[in-house]
Amino acid sequence: MRLDGVASRALLAMHDHAVLCTLHAERGVDAVPVAYALDADGYVGIPVDLVKPKASTRLQRERNLEADPRATLLIEQWSADDWSQLWWVRAELQWQGDMADRAASLASLLAEKYPQYRDQPFARVLVLRVVALTGWSAAEH
Amino acid sequence: MRLDGVASRALLAMHDHAVLCTLHAERGVDAVPVAYALDADGYVGIPVDLVKPKASTRLQRERNLEADPRATLLIEQWSADDWSQLWWVRAELQWQGDMADRAASLASLLAEKYPQYRDQPFARVLVLRVVALTGWSAAEH
Repeated sequence: MRLDGVASRALLAMHDHAVLCTLHAERGVDAVPVAYALDADGYVGIPVDLVKPKASTRLQRERNLEADPRATLLIEQWSADDWSQLWWVRAELQWQGDMADRAASLASLLAEKYPQYRDQPFARVLVLRVVALTGWSAAEH
Repeated sequence: MRLDGVASRALLAMHDHAVLCTLHAERGVDAVPVAYALDADGYVGIPVDLVKPKASTRLQRERNLEADPRATLLIEQWSADDWSQLWWVRAELQWQGDMADRAASLASLLAEKYPQYRDQPFARVLVLRVVALTGWSAAEH
């Protein structure tokens, strides 16, 4: 049922996308699907991209993180037919503000992971650090 | 890019699962995948089930909602290869506390929507009301 840290981290390193949750003063939680990359030191990079069209490049998630640096990243596998295949991993994150070097190395990881970013790079990368990791699986591991 | 209310509601009515986000005093956001059903009056039922094994039937999400009734439900479609297929719908929710009649009708909807619940019903249903709906799609609709 509960996934250990090694399994949770392995899934987080390889999954193709996540849901990023940030805190909004009135609404409570803002949640949005994101591309992301995890590096070996436990930093997560989330691109503010130009590929998926947005209303603005100044994103609500960034305003939220400036007001409260706590964030949550969820990855999950669903299977409509076979619920023994279900799993999820949840990372508690802290937004790190400006970290130019880390942002640059995470940008390289993102370009490796997502072919979409090779031709059209993103505007910038949000840098967050994993502070806790929880995982759950319906099956025995 | 932005989905209108009709499109957002239609996607929310038919999607197979969602991510439920609730507020935790220290961690900020708790996020977890859930089965759900939406009724015609804008109420969402989320089962506390006995099918997917849990550490406890008294769930953290319930303690969170008792402390702060705001919640967010996100549904989304990802496509690793074709980002023009991406969309998401986010519902702001308010937990309604005990609503026995509404919980019973939502329980029926859940059993219709998920064959897994026909043989092994859930312990109870959390009732939340949709107070706002936002949707985004990469493609023109």
